Order: sequence, then structure tokens, then C-alpha cells
Amino acid sequence: MTRPLHLHPDRLFASDPAQRDIARALYRTVADLPIVSPHGHTDPHWFATDAPWRNATDLLLVPDHYVFRMLYSQGVPLDALGVPSRSGAPTTDPRAAWRTFAQHYHLFRATPSRLWLDHVFAEVMGLDVALEEATADLYYDHITARLAEPDYRPRALFDRFGIEVLATTEGAEADLSAHRAIRASGWGGRVITTYRPDGVIDVEHEQFAPAMARFAELTGEDVWSWRGYLAAHRKRRADFRAAGATATDHGHPSARTANLSAAEAEALFRRVTGGRPDAADADLFRAQMLTEMARMSVEDGMVMQLHPGSFRNHNEALFATYGRDKGADIPMRVDYVAALKPLLDAVGNERDFTLILFTLDESTYARELAPLAGHYPCLRLGPAWWFHDSPEGMRRYREMTTETAGFYNTVGFNDDTRAFLSIPARHDVARRVDCAFLARLVAEHRLEDWEAAELAQDLTVNLVRRAYRL
Amino acid sequence: MTRPLHLHPDRLFASDPAQRDIARALYRTVADLPIVSPHGHTDPHWFATDAPWRNATDLLLVPDHYVFRMLYSQGVPLDALGVPSRSGAPTTDPRAAWRTFAQHYHLFRATPSRLWLDHVFAEVMGLDVALEEATADLYYDHITARLAEPDYRPRALFDRFGIEVLATTEGAEADLSAHRAIRASGWGGRVITTYRPDGVIDVEHEQFAPAMARFAELTGEDVWSWRGYLAAHRKRRADFRAAGATATDHGHPSARTANLSAAEAEALFRRVTGGRPDAADADLFRAQMLTEMARMSVEDGMVMQLHPGSFRNHNEALFATYGRDKGADIPMRVDYVAALKPLLDAVGNERDFTLILFTLDESTYARELAPLAGHYPCLRLGPAWWFHDSPEGMRRYREMTTETAGFYNTVGFNDDTRAFLSIPARHDVARRVDCAFLARLVAEHRLEDWEAAELAQDLTVNLVRRAYRL
Amino acid sequence: MTRPLHLHPDRLFASDPAQRDIARALYRTVADLPIVSPHGHTDPHWFATDAPWRNATDLLLVPDHYVFRMLYSQGVPLDALGVPSRSGAPTTDPRAAWRTFAQHYHLFRATPSRLWLDHVFAEVMGLDVALEEATADLYYDHITARLAEPDYRPRALFDRFGIEVLATTEGAEADLSAHRAIRASGWGGRVITTYRPDGVIDVEHEQFAPAMARFAELTGEDVWSWRGYLAAHRKRRADFRAAGATATDHGHPSARTANLSAAEAEALFRRVTGGRPDAADADLFRAQMLTEMARMSVEDGMVMQLHPGSFRNHNEALFATYGRDKGADIPMRVDYVAALKPLLDAVGNERDFTLILFTLDESTYARELAPLAGHYPCLRLGPAWWFHDSPEGMRRYREMTTETAGFYNTVGFNDDTRAFLSIPARHDVARRVDCAFLARLVAEHRLEDWEAAELAQDLTVNLVRRAYRL
Repeated sequence: MTRPLHLHPDRLFASDPAQRDIARALYRTVADLPIVSPHGHTDPHWFATDAPWRNATDLLLVPDHYVFRMLYSQGVPLDALGVPSRSGAPTTDPRAAWRTFAQHYHLFRATPSRLWLDHVFAEVMGLDVALEEATADLYYDHITARLAEPDYRPRALFDRFGIEVLATTEGAEADLSAHRAIRASGWGGRVITTYRPDGVIDVEHEQFAPAMARFAELTGEDVWSWRGYLAAHRKRRADFRAAGATATDHGHPSARTANLSAAEAEALFRRVTGGRPDAADADLFRAQMLTEMARMSVEDGMVMQLHPGSFRNHNEALFATYGRDKGADIPMRVDYVAALKPLLDAVGNERDFTLILFTLDESTYARELAPLAGHYPCLRLGPAWWFHDSPEGMRRYREMTTETAGFYNTVGFNDDTRAFLSIPARHDVARRVDCAFLARLVAEHRLEDWEAAELAQDLTVNLVRRAYRL
Repeated sequence: MTRPLHLHPDRLFASDPAQRDIARALYRTVADLPIVSPHGHTDPHWFATDAPWRNATDLLLVPDHYVFRMLYSQGVPLDALGVPSRSGAPTTDPRAAWRTFAQHYHLFRATPSRLWLDHVFAEVMGLDVALEEATADLYYDHITARLAEPDYRPRALFDRFGIEVLATTEGAEADLSAHRAIRASGWGGRVITTYRPDGVIDVEHEQFAPAMARFAELTGEDVWSWRGYLAAHRKRRADFRAAGATATDHGHPSARTANLSAAEAEALFRRVTGGRPDAADADLFRAQMLTEMARMSVEDGMVMQLHPGSFRNHNEALFATYGRDKGADIPMRVDYVAALKPLLDAVGNERDFTLILFTLDESTYARELAPLAGHYPCLRLGPAWWFHDSPEGMRRYREMTTETAGFYNTVGFNDDTRAFLSIPARHDVARRVDCAFLARLVAEHRLEDWEAAELAQDLTVNLVRRAYRL
Repeated sequence: MTRPLHLHPDRLFASDPAQRDIARALYRTVADLPIVSPHGHTDPHWFATDAPWRNATDLLLVPDHYVFRMLYSQGVPLDALGVPSRSGAPTTDPRAAWRTFAQHYHLFRATPSRLWLDHVFAEVMGLDVALEEATADLYYDHITARLAEPDYRPRALFDRFGIEVLATTEGAEADLSAHRAIRASGWGGRVITTYRPDGVIDVEHEQFAPAMARFAELTGEDVWSWRGYLAAHRKRRADFRAAGATATDHGHPSARTANLSAAEAEALFRRVTGGRPDAADADLFRAQMLTEMARMSVEDGMVMQLHPGSFRNHNEALFATYGRDKGADIPMRVDYVAALKPLLDAVGNERDFTLILFTLDESTYARELAPLAGHYPCLRLGPAWWFHDSPEGMRRYREMTTETAGFYNTVGFNDDTRAFLSIPARHDVARRVDCAFLARLVAEHRLEDWEAAELAQDLTVNLVRRAYRL
């Protein structure tokens, strides 16, 4: 006997009736607003080619590191899930992989993955029984069949989801051909790119040399000279803007910034690009480049995003066999106060510059980030990120940032996902949690009802449009 | 059409009816208790001269760094708000500044500033419409008119607010003439001082040399010798006690303490006062002086307060133009466990010594501060401080300290403000949040109702009177 | 007039009626399940000899560092409570000590000690008036009389409490005679040991040399050679397994691990055991030994537990007079991400190895521990520990770990206590708090009711049995 799959209309609202009534009313006013997705990792080729996805496993399981990391933590080998290693995809039958997933679905109880997946299953796929071992095949067949239908192609879903704008993320060495193809296709969906130059800034990255080669090729600059290197960045930033980008993104180990003299910076560049750089120089170079990027943002108006604090590829053996992005990135303690000072001393009071800060270290919300954003004109706080993009994580974010930074130094929601089908689910969770937070403030007479109504709109669409200049 | 300004009688209580009823009943028993304000930054000259304040902007906007930092973070220049720079007050019309503030009042939604200001507007000023662009002039005129009335002079408000005692804070180089004038005036208000010697302890402070000169002058001691320097502190502590002080206050970058031998301390003193001290020595000297101050407290019974962890004047350009206390102080991560050990090894088991610890780093509440205060006889926990003096901040404080330190190792509320008119608002918020916390404990059957009733009194007046020896 | 002592049947459940009803129903299904206690510090001699305890003070006050640390923090000398110093027990009359405790019982309001003690008083001792100065003698006489009755002997209480298994903790130098006596006695209670080799791993411990001597004697190995030392650990692990142990336990200052080559490890061993080791070597040796212990766990299947982050014996004067475990251990900030990497690189992907991590630094729950446990197959999260074994602490634990690690990477509850009579109380608090947490999830439609019912069983008995291989 199967169990029903049911998304309760009041999910994520407080059970207290006074709060729930207010939350419900607020949510009704934002539930159907367009989705503005200024930061994510979907593949632009989906929208360029509009080719159908193949099956449930390839679409929903194999690329979702939230999902396979949890399964791996409970002893399920990645091969059994169809996750490719450095030597290619395993021979695992996708249906068998799906069955393994279904059998372990209870592991996701009370996790955001469960919320998102159930939303995809019910709302996007129209399933009405719960996923478990007994329904694995039913799910696999149902989803795979749907994906073959025209209504389930990327562009059709983009339209059905009500997406106003979707930003992808590309490296400095990307050719942006998919983005050009989307624009040339005549399709009306707004898919834009984001400039993420980490690959040509992190000299310790194993792909640094090939990335630099592509960077040179695409720009025609002598990227191995400091002057040429900076000029190449400027050119590529312009290319990205031409492909719709309004923002840059920087994923560094720490938030460290530096502001060296031009001569020191050039000498440092020579050291890190000439032979094996030492770790201290590599780190200083990343720090210096954040300030260089900030200065270019002051020039060209691109919004800058900084996502620090992830220890990438923590699991040595897994990295050796499977490579990057296999669920083994672990957050670290991060400092912002001393780290950002050089950059802020350089451009912190620029009124037309925007630097959006993210964190994986929640202890910095109330201690560092809210006080910084509540003072510096250029700073805004990105939403609860990655592991904290969850009901409890978002609640803590609002509780720990609002009193010092207010709502207006925040920038709405980022789904930050490569799981395209989950985008409506993720925005829905964010809207519900924000409405629940506002409802508590109203019910405790800390906010007027008309203010909450305005804020619900602001948190859903206005702040993100404004912050990302969309 | 204006909107009404209304302070809901149940504000800040949980919306759950069981909790709300208990909170309301508890609050009724403490709402009208006298205000005991053992730590703050009001200007004693107000009470010495009892001169009227001039206008809304000068009183409520210009000196309130919580307010102007938020406006600055959203691009409003400090000049437009009338905030003085190092070269003096700008020529900004105070009414224009007030209008700018009113226009941006929505930025303060769900912040403590909003709670405090609305309380001042409604309760102190008798306004009944909300502040917004349309009511800016009405507010400005109304408040400015009130301030000219005798009932709105400092002493009249002091009496009306039901203040039992108000502590100000003065440097070691202060002449205390305002305090002497208050006592000589025959007015009955109890305004006392607090000994804050940071200016003659922090050798890196830009005003260290002139402060030392005043320190020498006021004490007649050779303050440039270690023995004379310590003797000067003793004399000034006695002067402050004569002006009513029961406490000292220390605002250091970190909680570091040291306990050098007499010879080492003297050598260190010579190094830091002879020419340009290096940063390590300056820091060690601050650390050593905390232990010296603690020893003097053991001798003279003054309660010691330590407020570490603020990165002062983080914004270089702003500091250059506007100077200190312009909303650019940012909290940092703080350690207490290793930092306090030298001082605690020296005097930590003294039963008549009290050291009240504050923090801007909430991660230390449950991890370090509650365990320390739940063991050492001399330690008490100051209330949620500065950015954390807010409904959510106070709730977290109680949730994270009570189970290990209990209520009786805490010291009631500090308003810590220079915004005199907001003092009743701040104490009211604290009383409400404490009653809401106690109500939850009673409603969850973790505390008996009669215990909560006793605790409400203790948290409001008994603990503060006892801890500060008032 | 005395006050009634009453344990409310709904204590620790949310006051919101929807949540409370669900919590009550869940709790009913787990309230009477057996107690599985895989980690604690009761004395196995109690169960070996089954001798009666002497009086209320000796049983409930003198050994409970949670209790006497709070009294000490408020100025009560340890001597007045009967706490022994290095020179033996004070002459304090146990009844007088109990009166002092009773007089200060209000200090424990809203602390877990209060919850546990009231449960002991009401449920175990059958008292129906509250403890206060006026009832001190009544309590003392009542409890002391009960303890003389056969039903209050250790084994009778063990059976009455419904304990399925109780693990004690012994050092590598322990003879395990009490455990042998229990097994030889024919009594059916399952009391097992746990291998805690800190005493022969921490070369800075003041008892290191005598512990090593006992270690050599018990194993017949040359423990002063690296090879013999490792062989001795293997032998003792086998001895402990023979005495029922399924786990080892490691209480280190930090979570640092190392993975030196065999030659480096041997050289390090020689340095730290030959004369006065320097602090850096001592720390590196502890780090290396964690990895050695992990490797042995891979061999022999013992579950490994790591409890880092306590600054032991922080109060120098108290330590000098009273020795260890006198309430002066203070948590410190802890890093896991870099610290555990060497061990995890060595054995982190072993599917049959289990390493259970505890923390006193709650900022690591969401940032480090949940992401690590949500990825590595060997890692599990221990429950909220020590100062965080409290209603608010457990709530934060669930809120900050569940969304990333799920429920199934946690291991149920540990009482971790030497206060045998409080074991049912502690497990009852944990069950109530877990049911309250699950109830919130159900009431907010984040979990189905049937899932919560399954989880309540899992969190109470299934996860702990599985994780500890019981």
C-alpha cells in the first residue's frame, strides 16, 4: 500500500493560529510573483538547445550533490547512484540507481532536499504517491515519460515556472556560445550569465594553466603580463555584460582582501605565474584580485558577489577518484572584519558599488555581517546560503541579521542551484519562510500589517531586482 | 493620509495565548518599577545645567549612531543628517535633516531603533501619527516645541521616567565638575559616574598624551613613573567614588589579561610610555592593566566591567573625516577562556570582587561566558550588549546563558545609551522580553509561576542593585 | 508552609496546543522504552557490590559538579558542601551541607540540574514537597532513609529504571575487576565498559608515568617502545571487549589528528616518552594517537568517540587545592574541518568504521559537524553534550544539525553522567525534547505524522543500538 504525497498548503508556517493566519495572507500576495533568480548554476545549453532530459536519475539524482552526499554518508557508494568518476560514468543502470535512492528516501526527513524533491514530484511531475522502495519504478517511469513530452522541455518549464530572469555562472574562460545561441534563437526567456573568474585567479587550481590559455585566446591579451591580465579581465567583463551579465561572482577560501601598490601587485603577479607559486603568495594574489575586481565594478557597474569559506574537496580519496563537486566541500570558520578592510578602505564608501556577501559561518551573521552591512554603503547581505538554504537556516538568518542590518540591506533570495526543476520549490520555501518570519513580527506587534505586506513584496522581487540591477 | 502611531500593549510577547497571558501578568508587576541604569553614556551636564534641548534633530538624530549608521548604509551622506565632522557641524538645516530621516524611516522596520523611537514619539512626546515623509514637519515642530517646555527639561524627564539611579561614564582625565554641580544643586536625582580609564591605558589612542597630562594634573602624581601611574589611578578611583561611582568600565579590543611580575610590569610601562610603543607591547600593557584594575577593585570594592571585542573606527575614510563613534565600530570574534586566565588566576576566587563581562560575540554565550560565570565567584554576565540589545538578541542571551549560568549570575539590564529620551523605551523592551522568556518557561512547565514572579522582580531591579552595589 | 513538588505531565512540550497534542502522543510511545546508556561515568563497583549509598549529600550533592559549580559561583565554599579536596573530605556534616544546598536551590531555576533533581526527588524518591530551606531536613532524612532500603540499592534501581545497557568508562590502566565481578555475580544487568586511554596518551597528564606503569603491568608489553606501546593498546582493547566494551572514548583538548609515517611516529613517541616532552610534541602525539586508535577500530570494530574542546582545570588555585573535576572545566572554540582531515584521509571512507563526534562549541553544529557527518560514511554526531545537554541545548542541536546531516547520522542520547539516580530523568528530558521537536515539524507540515512516530522510536532506541553496536 502506497502513501499519499501531499504538499500541505500551510507548510512552513507557524502552528500558532494567529501567526498562521497572517502568514497565509502574506503568502497569498507573493506566491505567484515571478521568479527572479540572480545567482545559480543551471546549464545554459539546456535553454540553447531545448533538448529533452533523458530520465529521472540523470536529471534529479546524478547532478544533485545535496542528495548523493547524504546517501554516501550512510554507506551508499557513488557508483551505485550513477555518479560519474574521473574515468567517466559508471555502468550502473539508471533505474537501479533510482531504486537505491528511493529505498533510502527516509534519510532526507526534515531536510530541505526532501521539501524540494517532494515539490518537484507533486507540482512539476504531478505525482500523488510518496517516494519509497515500493514506488521507485512507478516514479522512474512516470518522470522519464514526462520528460519526453514537449511540456517538460527546458524552455517550456522555464515559462511554466514564471521565471523573469535566470542567471547562470560561467568562468572567465567560457565562450558564452550557449548564451549567444539563446539570444539568437528568438525565444523570449531571459537567461543571463555571471562572470566568475576564479579559474584564472586561483593559481592553485589544477586547471589554472589551461584556463589562462583560453583566457588569452578569447581576449587576445598577453595574460601572462600584469597589465595584459587586467586588460583581459576588463574585456571579458564587457563580453559577459554583452551576454546579459549584471554581476560577478567570487568563490574564495576566505574573505581576505589586499590592496597592494601597483608595483607590489605586479611583482606578486610575476611570482604566482612564474613556476610553482607558494601558498602564501597564491592566497595574497586571490586577496589582491578581489580588490582589483571591486575597482573594475566601480568602473563598469557590475555587482560583485563574494562566497567565501568552503574547504573544497575535503575528502582526498574521493577527490582522487571522482573529482570536484562530489559533496565533500565543508564550511570553515570565516572572518570578515579584518579580511575585508583593505577592499573597504579602497572602495567601501562608493555609493554606486555593490558587494554582496555570503557566508557558511552563521556565527558571523549578527557579529560581523549585519554590523558591516548596516554601515557600509556598498555592502549588502546575500541570503542564507548552501547548507543554510533551509527553513531553519533562513529563520536564523532573519533573526540574526534584521535587527542590525534591517531588511533593506538584504537582497532577496538566491536559489544557487543546478537543479533546474527545483527552482520553483526553492523560491516557494524562501517565500514561505519569509512570510512566516514577517507573520511572527506582526503577531508580536513588532511590525504593522501594512509594513509586512510591503516587505513581502520587497523580499520577493523588489530587493533582488534592485540589488542585481535587473 | 497619515497612519496612526500605536504602541500595542502586548508588543514583544509571544502570540501563543497561554504564553501571552502569563507574560502580560508578569509584565504588569514590573512595568512601573523604578529604572536602575548602572551603565550609560548620557551627558552629566544636562542634569547639572538643566538647560533645554534645542530641537528634534540635535536630540534624537545627530547623536544616535544606531540611526545614522543605518541611513549611511543606504547611501545617505552624514552631512545630510547634520552629523558633525572633525571640522565641525555641517551647515545642514536641522529640519531638512529630520525630513531626510523621516523619508527613510522604513529602513528601521523590525530594528530596536524603531521600537525605541516609536516609544519616545508616543510615550514621551505624545505623538499619535506615525513618522513618515508626510509627517516629518509635524514631528519636527511638535518635538521642538515640547523641548522648550519646562516638563521636557532633563531633570523633569529624569523624574518623570522614574529613574532611581543613572550612571554616566567619564574618563580618568575628567574633572567631574558636572557631577559636583549636580550634587551641589540640591536636586534629588541620583546621577553617578563610572571610572573608565581607557584613555590613559590605551597607549595607541591618539589622545593618550593629553589624557596623561590631565591625569597628572588632576592627581599631582608623576604619572610617567609606574609607581606614580598606579597611585594616580588609586586617587582618581577615590575621586570617582566620591562622585558616586560604584563601578569601573573597560572597553578593550580583546579580553586579554596578563599578570606580569612587578619588575616586568614596570619595564613594560617604561617601554610603552617612552617613545613609540610597538603594537605587541601596547596590547600587553592593556592586558596587564586589566589585572591591575582588578586588584584595585579587590582593594576598594569597585565593580569592574569589561566590554571587549569591538574593532573601532573600521572605516578609514570616515574616521579621517568624521572621527570616532560614527557607527563604524564592528564586532570581532573574541576569546575569553585563555584571555581571562591570568586575571582569574590572580583574583578569580575573591568573593568580594565582581567582574561583569559583556560580549559582542554571541558564540561565546553558551560556550565560554555561561560556563565561566557558572563557576567563578567573581564573574557575572552583563546583559545582551550594543547590537544585541534587541528583542532577538536578548532572547538568544537568555536561551544561551540561563541553563549553565542560571539567572543569578546575570546583572539585569544596562541601557548603555547616550539617548536619554530612549531610556524608558529600552528598559521597557528589556522587561517585556524577559517577561516573555519567563512566560515561555512557565507555559512549558519548566518554572513555577511564583518563581517567575520572583524572577521578574530580580531581573528588573534586584540583580542590578546587588551586582553594582547600588 | 511548603510548596508542592509536581512534575507536570506536559513539561518541555510547546505551549501551542497543536504542537503539544502531537508531542504528547509521540511521547506516550517512547516514555517507557528501555534506557540505552552507551556513554557514562557511573562507578561499576556500585553494581559489583550492590552496597547501599549512605546519604543524600554523598549521593546527590558531593559528586555532582553541575550542582556544586553553580553554588561555588555564588560564593558557597566547596568545603561547606562536603566536596573533598586533595587532602581528603572536609569535616562538614553532610546534613549541614544539604541545608546549604537547599537554601540555594533557587539558583538552579531553569537549569537542567533542576529538572533532573526534581525528577529524582519526585519519581525516584517519592517526595511531594519542593526543596527549599524549610524542607532541607525532611529531604535529607527521607532520602537517607530510602537509601537504606533494599529497593534503593544500585541493582534494584538499575532494574526499576528499565536500563537495557549501561556503559561505564575506564582508563587503559584499569583492572576491570568490578566488571568481572558483575559478570561473575549472576546478576542479569548489562553493565559494560568503554576504553578510554587518555591517561596513557596524554603525556602532559600528571598521572602519565604511573598510568604507563600499570599499562605495562597489565599487558606484559614493553610500553616504552613504540611497537610495545601499540601492542599494549591492542591487548587492552581486547580486554575491554571481553568486559563488554563496544566503544572507545577520547577526551582531547582539540580535535587535532595527524597521520605521520611509521618512522616519524616512532621518533615522536621516543621524544615524548624520553624526559620532559615539549607542548608541541605532546599535542602532536595526541593527534597521532587518534589516527592510531581509528586504525585499530577499523581492525577490531570498536566504535570510536571523540570529545574535544574542554579547557580542563581552568581555575589554578582550585585545582591546586581540590584537584580535577571540580566544575572548572571550560569549553573552548574548536575546529574540526582541518583538524580531522589527516584521520579522515586515512580511514574516512571505511564503511565499517564509526567515529562519533561531540562538541562543546555549538557554532560548529551547522558549520562543520553536520556537513562532515552528512558526507563521510564513518562519521556520526553525538548528542548535545555536557553544558548543552539541556532543553535549549538539545533544541539548538536538532535545529542546527538535522537539515544537513539528517536524523540518521545522529546516535540517540548519551546521559554521560556519574549521577546514577538522574539517568531516567536525563533520558526523559531528551525524549521529551525530541518529541517536542518532531511535533513542531509535524505541526508545520514538514514531516508526516507516521514519520515522526518512526523517528521517535529511532531517536530513542534504534539509532543508539545501531551506532554503538549494542
